[in-house]
Amino acid sequence: MIRFFDDIRVGDRVELGTYLFTADDIKTFARQFDPQAFHVDEEEGLRSHFGGLVASGWHTASIWMRKLVDHRRREAEAIRSRGERMPQVGPSPGFRNLRWYKPVFAGDTVSYAVEVIEMRISQSRPDRGIVNMFGTGNNQHGVRVISFETATFVERRNPESQ
Amino acid sequence: MIRFFDDIRVGDRVELGTYLFTADDIKTFARQFDPQAFHVDEEEGLRSHFGGLVASGWHTASIWMRKLVDHRRREAEAIRSRGERMPQVGPSPGFRNLRWYKPVFAGDTVSYAVEVIEMRISQSRPDRGIVNMFGTGNNQHGVRVISFETATFVERRNPESQ
Repeated sequence: MIRFFDDIRVGDRVELGTYLFTADDIKTFARQFDPQAFHVDEEEGLRSHFGGLVASGWHTASIWMRKLVDHRRREAEAIRSRGERMPQVGPSPGFRNLRWYKPVFAGDTVSYAVEVIEMRISQSRPDRGIVNMFGTGNNQHGVRVISFETATFVERRNPESQ
Repeated sequence: MIRFFDDIRVGDRVELGTYLFTADDIKTFARQFDPQAFHVDEEEGLRSHFGGLVASGWHTASIWMRKLVDHRRREAEAIRSRGERMPQVGPSPGFRNLRWYKPVFAGDTVSYAVEVIEMRISQSRPDRGIVNMFGTGNNQHGVRVISFETATFVERRNPESQ
């Protein structure tokens, strides 16, 4: 969401798109960052408590980030094409309550989204606001597989006049 | 920490090793998962508020995971070589308060660690305990760059006798 703080509302929601987790994808990520047996080998996955090859939780989370960046890039391009001024957005100071609810199996498609859950004006920097967001991913059955809360600093359009 | 719940103590700490974030590494991860300008291009990094090419926070976190998995693998091999029974460990239900404090620049070396901060016996499954851990990464100047809390289920050695 590349918008000025003033143009954002609690409850605003953006669908970030979907991602198909193939077995190859899952194994490529896991070999590098999370080489547990059930992330890198189908047979081991079948024998594990998961009952199949499953994506690393960090993979599921990293794809959310990629989807957000792609979305922001499209928004930034639209703003530039309209010749409007670009609001300053970011960085994020961190994430809270990152949770993995259900495994993401090879062949699953995850739909990612982000929703504004809280907004406030920064005490230390009144020229910007803090937007708290809830990031989610649901699988093709509509079952939640990941969620977390994150915050971003967002420029205010007219801090002096308010 | 591949140990039975009974053999773990609050305050136990493991150094997971170090990782050098090269510019190539940073850009390779970021192109795939977090292609923001300051993660994929040195010049853009210099012009950004970071003042240099910096690693994606998801990259810093994913390397912690890799270091933990490598550590556990070494422990599991040692247990097997001693012919001892392997305790059931995992999975992790999620992470809390994932924070990135300072940027990780190209050329930085991060030292990862994990410390046991809380333990309790599971109410629903008395054959296992829940171990809360604090994961950290510090750069070569001893400055904290990342931390989070996570929990793992760990098998108890003698649940009946306690």
